[in-house]
Amino acid sequence: MRILLIHSDQITYEAQKKTPVAEENIVPADGLEEALTAFCAVEAPDEENIAGVAAKTAREILEAAEKLGTTNIMVYPYAHLSSDLSSPKAAIEALTAIERICSEKKGMTVKRAPFGWYKAFTISCKGHPLSELSRTITPEDTEEKTAKKEVT
Amino acid sequence: MRILLIHSDQITYEAQKKTPVAEENIVPADGLEEALTAFCAVEAPDEENIAGVAAKTAREILEAAEKLGTTNIMVYPYAHLSSDLSSPKAAIEALTAIERICSEKKGMTVKRAPFGWYKAFTISCKGHPLSELSRTITPEDTEEKTAKKEVT
Ligand SMILES: [Mg+2]
Repeated sequence: MRILLIHSDQITYEAQKKTPVAEENIVPADGLEEALTAFCAVEAPDEENIAGVAAKTAREILEAAEKLGTTNIMVYPYAHLSSDLSSPKAAIEALTAIERICSEKKGMTVKRAPFGWYKAFTISCKGHPLSELSRTITPEDTEEKTAKKEVT
Repeated sequence: MRILLIHSDQITYEAQKKTPVAEENIVPADGLEEALTAFCAVEAPDEENIAGVAAKTAREILEAAEKLGTTNIMVYPYAHLSSDLSSPKAAIEALTAIERICSEKKGMTVKRAPFGWYKAFTISCKGHPLSELSRTITPEDTEEKTAKKEVT
């Protein structure tokens, strides 16, 4: 999983056209002010432990949001962050899990842009030193794996 | 070299604060309407042939601009596109060369956001199917290398 987190004055998107892997039942257009935008590319190796990678990613996003003092999160699929993508099915599973886990934290407003659609978007990055962060999360980083390691 | 090309209704930036590798003599704030924004991460392997990689990258950017019918290009350093970055010196050399080569094409307006500065930015992506493209360019893709291969 490759993520790019941008502390944004504004993020808006508008789905324009389906790709062949478009998910259904989407929110076609939405936006958030004063948000952490989490651009996410789910990668092929993540398929080994989608739930674990999604959980670890959600924790990273929530931690960054807390540090930045924002309670708004936009989960935004962004295939261009990786050249080794997972299957669309695994990507949707991971993105949905990230959205769900982030929303479970009290006080958070979490939205998710649809996977597999061409989208217009506008983003304003605040530009302070912590306003852009990128991370790579692998199945090896997940707590399940860590737990297993402690047992053996 | 990793590039992400975004066909933008608008791109603006504003330098906020230096990082330790900031270049000097910058244009602190600027923008373009109806532009191709070329986010670029210069990578360590590019140092083998910075001039060649920069030239090939400029050709890719100009080709995309022509296809999209835009004459405005914003070259924007974006380290988060790669986890294997070149030295700052090589990056500035490559980015400057890309800017220069693109500007040499008649009718093009080319601007470049400063390297090594924390920057606020706003971008609007048009969202049509060709409005986001990413590419990886390596020293092996350069014409100099191809020419050498033809000789041997
Ligand atoms: Mg601001």
